[in-house]
Amino acid sequence: MRTIDWCEGQTSNGVPAGGAVVIVDQTVLPHELRFLTLTDVDDLVAAIQRLAVRGAPALGAAGALGVLLARRQAQREGWDDATAAAAIDRVRAARPTAVNLMWGVDRVVARLPEGDAAVEAEARAVLDEDVAANRAMGNRGAALLEALCPPRSDGSDGTGHLLRLATHCNAGALACVEYGTALGVVRAVHDRGRLGRVFAGETRPLLQGARLTAWELDRMGVDYRVVVDGAGPSLIARGLVDAVVVGSDRIAANGDVANKVGTYPLALAAARAGIPFVVAAPESTVDAATPDGDSIEIEDRSDREVVAWQGRQVAPEGARAVNPAFDVTPADLVTAIVTEARVVRPATGERPA
Amino acid sequence: MRTIDWCEGQTSNGVPAGGAVVIVDQTVLPHELRFLTLTDVDDLVAAIQRLAVRGAPALGAAGALGVLLARRQAQREGWDDATAAAAIDRVRAARPTAVNLMWGVDRVVARLPEGDAAVEAEARAVLDEDVAANRAMGNRGAALLEALCPPRSDGSDGTGHLLRLATHCNAGALACVEYGTALGVVRAVHDRGRLGRVFAGETRPLLQGARLTAWELDRMGVDYRVVVDGAGPSLIARGLVDAVVVGSDRIAANGDVANKVGTYPLALAAARAGIPFVVAAPESTVDAATPDGDSIEIEDRSDREVVAWQGRQVAPEGARAVNPAFDVTPADLVTAIVTEARVVRPATGERPA
Repeated sequence: MRTIDWCEGQTSNGVPAGGAVVIVDQTVLPHELRFLTLTDVDDLVAAIQRLAVRGAPALGAAGALGVLLARRQAQREGWDDATAAAAIDRVRAARPTAVNLMWGVDRVVARLPEGDAAVEAEARAVLDEDVAANRAMGNRGAALLEALCPPRSDGSDGTGHLLRLATHCNAGALACVEYGTALGVVRAVHDRGRLGRVFAGETRPLLQGARLTAWELDRMGVDYRVVVDGAGPSLIARGLVDAVVVGSDRIAANGDVANKVGTYPLALAAARAGIPFVVAAPESTVDAATPDGDSIEIEDRSDREVVAWQGRQVAPEGARAVNPAFDVTPADLVTAIVTEARVVRPATGERPA
Repeated sequence: MRTIDWCEGQTSNGVPAGGAVVIVDQTVLPHELRFLTLTDVDDLVAAIQRLAVRGAPALGAAGALGVLLARRQAQREGWDDATAAAAIDRVRAARPTAVNLMWGVDRVVARLPEGDAAVEAEARAVLDEDVAANRAMGNRGAALLEALCPPRSDGSDGTGHLLRLATHCNAGALACVEYGTALGVVRAVHDRGRLGRVFAGETRPLLQGARLTAWELDRMGVDYRVVVDGAGPSLIARGLVDAVVVGSDRIAANGDVANKVGTYPLALAAARAGIPFVVAAPESTVDAATPDGDSIEIEDRSDREVVAWQGRQVAPEGARAVNPAFDVTPADLVTAIVTEARVVRPATGERPA
């Protein structure tokens, strides 16, 4: 199952001629698995804006498919070139800070002069390459973890070879086209029969861990536990975790890693406990133009996400919050960065760029 | 205002003859400040059990006042000795793991043979001593922070001498009779005109920080911000915090500190940033019989607190959690323990017991 895909119109699948972008609506997970069939560019724009589709790789795919959808809609509805170009611009601008969205749009726009077949092929290639990259990353990450984590001496019950992994936020299939980055590594470890348990940080304030990662782990059929974000570090200190595996939103040239806020405490705890802290992310996440973590601007989000819950105030009226979306883990705490192409070891001084 | 107090019956205050235990009902904070007037021992037991009164020092006071209340009720209702003793036992057992509750009961029970005046005096002494201890701790802690935190060089706007403190959970007046332990230190810093800002960790799963600490800080009129628990460590790394001040549920003889889960990551971040990590707690928290943190049993609470919110499931149906109530910060990360009597510096090898 792909989180986002292109579907050709056929009577048998109910998709109208001209095709559609089909996405999993992440806003209703984990309670319902609902697919949205989007045949209008502006429905796709709206889906992106209300986070029905989210995650950097998935947004790259949404951008690529958005151009294909705009071309099909233009043909169906007889748009002139200016109308079609404006529709593509609306996709590209749906989330202004999402670099991958623009990258996906631009990649397919470059093929427009070559005609329908080239556009469709390029859009599909963006998706296929993401899946292939995730699988490569997953296998490489799983092999690395097997090498880094020797069987535990407490495994006299025969479980000493099973890895107990901690992760944070959702770097899973739902953030990609399918498979996932950090959760792709978890999936590959599971496929090799080496997965013991996964601790998933709930990831306040928006609970991507409790809602999305838990849902994916549940579907994988693995043994998992949700934990509040404050608890992960002490579970590591208590010897309950063999390695931490997370994704990343941006990796600086020196190996500093930006990821969802709450990642840095896990890295601190992993370093103190002497267990690996592994980052799984595509090469496109490595930003050679960002020298180090200090150069990464941290998005501050609304107070409301913290002081209220489903619209109901939990803190005193008028309470203010600081709500950074990301934190930066310094390179010396990062055991390894695993991409579709390589393993980089920042803690030993290796630089990703 | 005291969180818990004894009130004699008078026509003018509406308390019936025989007196009452008056408590702030913490279950309706921060939205409402409601006092409960308890004239029946079993109403007090129920209030303890549903956490209307909570926090180790406050429970000590509840135990002491419970014995006084039982004696008054026995006189009013003509109980025999066995009935009175059973009522006291119900108070003592209201929360089986709350050592302070039993300590408060036992201290006043020991005076029962001496008669009414001795019982009342002992119960009131438990409360007065708690208040005095908190004030002493607050002043000592504030003086220590002033000594440990030199004015910042970025204070060219005249604010370099103001302390920016981070805390976790609620170690405030609401956990004590009044004033507070960690928040007592904050209060004393504020009274000295040296407080800049307080970052209060929301403290999942039960949000004592967002609900109770925020309410106390709001009433103090200080500049504060609520933060999700995953964010505190990176705020420290970004240079936004001058010191961490927390309470404790138990301090081992070697200086390892048990406190609400989410405390350890703040200690890790403080050590890396080179800022003080200070624990404020009464001497009664130091347990000479506990050699180190490994000997402290960590209470595991219900999965439901994590996977559901106000009764509504947020994680997938059937999702399980690990929900430790506390974590242990090792002594080498603890800059200082401040009690009503002394300052101990575990990070330099000093032992509290």
